[in-house]
Amino acid sequence: MNLKEEALKLHKDNLGKLMIKSKVEVKDEHDLSLAYSPGVAEPCLEIEKDQNKIYEYTNKSNFVAVVTDGSAVLGLGNIGAPASLPVMEGKAVLFKEFAGVDAFPICFNESDPDKLISYVKKIAPVFGGVNLEDIKSPECFYIEDRLKEELDIPVFHDDQHGTAIITLAALINSLILLKKNIEDIKVIVNGAGAAGASIIKLLHSEGVEEIIALDIKGAIYEGRDSLDESTKEIAKITNKDNKKGDLAEMIKGADVFIGVSAANLLYKEMVRTMADDPIIFAMANPEPEIWPEDALKAGAKIVGTGRSDYPNQVNNVLAFPGLFRGALDVRAKEINEEMKKAAAYALANLIDENELAPDYVIPKPFDPRVGPHVAAAVAQAAVKTGVARIEIDYEAELEKAKNIMKKINK
Amino acid sequence: MNLKEEALKLHKDNLGKLMIKSKVEVKDEHDLSLAYSPGVAEPCLEIEKDQNKIYEYTNKSNFVAVVTDGSAVLGLGNIGAPASLPVMEGKAVLFKEFAGVDAFPICFNESDPDKLISYVKKIAPVFGGVNLEDIKSPECFYIEDRLKEELDIPVFHDDQHGTAIITLAALINSLILLKKNIEDIKVIVNGAGAAGASIIKLLHSEGVEEIIALDIKGAIYEGRDSLDESTKEIAKITNKDNKKGDLAEMIKGADVFIGVSAANLLYKEMVRTMADDPIIFAMANPEPEIWPEDALKAGAKIVGTGRSDYPNQVNNVLAFPGLFRGALDVRAKEINEEMKKAAAYALANLIDENELAPDYVIPKPFDPRVGPHVAAAVAQAAVKTGVARIEIDYEAELEKAKNIMKKINK
Repeated sequence: MNLKEEALKLHKDNLGKLMIKSKVEVKDEHDLSLAYSPGVAEPCLEIEKDQNKIYEYTNKSNFVAVVTDGSAVLGLGNIGAPASLPVMEGKAVLFKEFAGVDAFPICFNESDPDKLISYVKKIAPVFGGVNLEDIKSPECFYIEDRLKEELDIPVFHDDQHGTAIITLAALINSLILLKKNIEDIKVIVNGAGAAGASIIKLLHSEGVEEIIALDIKGAIYEGRDSLDESTKEIAKITNKDNKKGDLAEMIKGADVFIGVSAANLLYKEMVRTMADDPIIFAMANPEPEIWPEDALKAGAKIVGTGRSDYPNQVNNVLAFPGLFRGALDVRAKEINEEMKKAAAYALANLIDENELAPDYVIPKPFDPRVGPHVAAAVAQAAVKTGVARIEIDYEAELEKAKNIMKKINK
Repeated sequence: MNLKEEALKLHKDNLGKLMIKSKVEVKDEHDLSLAYSPGVAEPCLEIEKDQNKIYEYTNKSNFVAVVTDGSAVLGLGNIGAPASLPVMEGKAVLFKEFAGVDAFPICFNESDPDKLISYVKKIAPVFGGVNLEDIKSPECFYIEDRLKEELDIPVFHDDQHGTAIITLAALINSLILLKKNIEDIKVIVNGAGAAGASIIKLLHSEGVEEIIALDIKGAIYEGRDSLDESTKEIAKITNKDNKKGDLAEMIKGADVFIGVSAANLLYKEMVRTMADDPIIFAMANPEPEIWPEDALKAGAKIVGTGRSDYPNQVNNVLAFPGLFRGALDVRAKEINEEMKKAAAYALANLIDENELAPDYVIPKPFDPRVGPHVAAAVAQAAVKTGVARIEIDYEAELEKAKNIMKKINK
């Protein structure tokens, strides 16, 4: 049985991948009178009096809505809300397995961004956070921006920021290893969709001064034709000299290539024109912009991809579960830039300097330290930036994480 | 600790009552590639090609949305969407514990019925059924009617029909016990809200010819002042002689009093004016229209209430879990009148004629035969009425139910 058949069988045998479970027992009349009528009236009344009590008496403190319109599902495109459900159930599975977050798929059969925004706002009361998923660009930017502004719970479009966080983590470690300064490097970001835009903003705010972004029409610069809201913003913070040209032209002398574009468009010849010790994150899925063996042959020092069968896998599961875990733990009102950076640094710091190697700049997805470390760092950043509703004991959280680390090192 | 304190503690200690669980393991890269990318693309593509496949590859076949606007929560009134969440979580707990249904609370912060309808339609693709809950009357009728018409999955307003189904079951057994014919009885239904309206329609369609319904202004008759859409419909099928008057007047000579109204409004003197062997279902909560001891003193033969501390408890948990179980098992397109009646007869039939007694006309909520028996009967009715997408083996289902029966009789 090949992977496709095995995947179909798994879904069919289990009739999907999610279920609901009760956290309380209902074995007799007394249990029933507490979990349901008449006892349940008490928490209702407490919440009616003080809406913040919803965090104490319900599962809002651990509920995340995985929201999609099915418009950009995996690499499959606009397949619609019903057909997106297997992915959303899968996302919820990962939330639970990697960070104990109770996520539920809400697939809206709606293509109008303003309507989608209004629907999400209507169901938000019962959720502690919203993970936007597989919504096409540029609509995804507008939808996230407005929901962030109008809701008082974390809203996070994973396709944008998940990849950006892990890319930053990988870049931090790569620069340590190659002894380069973040302020001095030239970075090429090929692909200016959801992930590209977020990567550019995060690297820019971390001090990368020279970034050139490219879309299908080549280098992006201010005043170029066919820029939308998002690429206009990108133009403002990249390509100061308004360079024009294609990837082969732009990549000359670059220290870093970041690909969130399409298969096989980075050639060995191009890699050879990059600066010394080039870093390549070729994250197109399932086929990268360049295969790692080719990149290495052409002189790349560090190569990462989205694939699990090569070193340095940029897998979103490294970020979103712990990120939401941390945000939920302190009942954060939002996930802000500082929290994303904290997640990136927590990921990077998981690898000691003496362990760092060209084929190990990103922790592995199943490293059990990842979730708790990211969560603790994100929670701390939320408190520091004043968006947490409560505080938690980071030291205890990190101690927990360290204990897990000790266990796996044995 | 009293019940109120204990209920608050239960909710606080557990931070709510629901959680999400994965049905599949994600222990390594291979698991991840099946449950998520890239394998998950396969079921997505299958569903895109044939939308019916969503029942096979996702949990739609077992997902029920518990939908509310928080406008009529328990007896607390319009406390809003957030404050209703403990009840909706509780309902989901009962769905799971009593019938293995995966229900999830969707609390819409929306008071406009048309908007609520459009929102439910937008999220319906991922659900196998919709349980409407605690939505105020008369809006609840309109909302249910339109959703039933416009969706191809079961839509069921439990506050209306749950009580009606169990009342019919109790009435069937009461009439057997007292040797009265359903066509000959006179029934008073006091209260013409959500539950009252549904009870009246179900009894009417089961052959009860003389029903008089009362609301706060007394007997309902055609042409009376202050009738809305729903009470106008009630007037059409009740009170043929257009009698006018209050409860004391109307109840004279009645065989059955059904109360879905308010505490302590049925007096012993009124019961004494009823026909021989009166049947009283006084279902106001938590205090019934008349206390059972008073009703019995005044000559009532059979008394039921909503309370667990008296015999003959009319508890909705007897109906909705098994009803949805049966509907989901055959992927029903709706829950129709025949399916509701099948549920009522299945409930009634669970008590053998030789077990029937004035204090045992309704099965007990924790009788483990209830869920499977109701489910099997409802599934069968769905197939018979042509609303099932697939068939199941009723005999096997009932055999399972009988085995449970044998076990508990030991």
